[in-house]
Amino acid sequence: MQIRDATPEDWPAIWPFLHGIVAAGETFTWDRDVSEEQARAMWLLDPPGRTVVAVAPEGTVLGTAKMNPNHMGPASHIAGASFMVAPEHAGCGVGRALGEHVLRWARAEGYRAMQFNAVVETNTRAVGLWRSLGFEVLATLPEGFRHPVKGYVGLHIMYRGL
Amino acid sequence: MQIRDATPEDWPAIWPFLHGIVAAGETFTWDRDVSEEQARAMWLLDPPGRTVVAVAPEGTVLGTAKMNPNHMGPASHIAGASFMVAPEHAGCGVGRALGEHVLRWARAEGYRAMQFNAVVETNTRAVGLWRSLGFEVLATLPEGFRHPVKGYVGLHIMYRGL
Repeated sequence: MQIRDATPEDWPAIWPFLHGIVAAGETFTWDRDVSEEQARAMWLLDPPGRTVVAVAPEGTVLGTAKMNPNHMGPASHIAGASFMVAPEHAGCGVGRALGEHVLRWARAEGYRAMQFNAVVETNTRAVGLWRSLGFEVLATLPEGFRHPVKGYVGLHIMYRGL
Repeated sequence: MQIRDATPEDWPAIWPFLHGIVAAGETFTWDRDVSEEQARAMWLLDPPGRTVVAVAPEGTVLGTAKMNPNHMGPASHIAGASFMVAPEHAGCGVGRALGEHVLRWARAEGYRAMQFNAVVETNTRAVGLWRSLGFEVLATLPEGFRHPVKGYVGLHIMYRGL
């Protein structure tokens, strides 16, 4: 698996699984009916943000991450990031590899901490992955996320120093 | 004091104190050298956001608030808001009146909670005001804000149900 900067040519491979994840409405705080144009603008970031893809040896896009300052001005030393892994490649370490990559990037860019604003508490795979990468649940917004099946569930703010 | 929707004609009265507050770098997570054009675009919101001004009987703009969904999609029932009070009118209840107005707006719009993402812990007047309006400090990002005099200080995430 290689992780490299995403290019506009990667978008057609990203959109199908990104769309499916957002439309499912179980893990992401995006409008479930997001248009491809909106999604592209929100996912493919310009500096100081950055977007990467995880790619299999034969070229298949397995997953993607975007990273960016989480706050502006006097709080711009806190980074944020979002991750999408194609469901058919889940459980193979793609999310972990992307997470480790993002942490390296943030340290190299001089960020002092990373904050995830909205990790759905029922997304236990993600919560467990981030914990294993050193993140803690700093707070939980009670009933912060409306899950299509489970109803209102908590929304974690996860954090780690760098 | 009257609180009403801000209009484009209010901007020339807002910008001087908004600019002063942002440039001071002590309470806001905006770039301290924000341009007037950027600030106007970030402060005067279109629906579903809203921007109001607090106005004295003779017409002076005393302060302003913007309110908006804090998250998107399945978390869009959480509102957010930001407040600016002209320093020469601080301590006269303008912030409290704006805060109460924003809470009424959020309830009327059907939001279930309000979350402030970045309240600087050394901004004790604001922290105390929000506590008195029912907010709690849900978490503090350690060293989340670089204060120009006090160095790195905590950045509170404050929250209340509606």
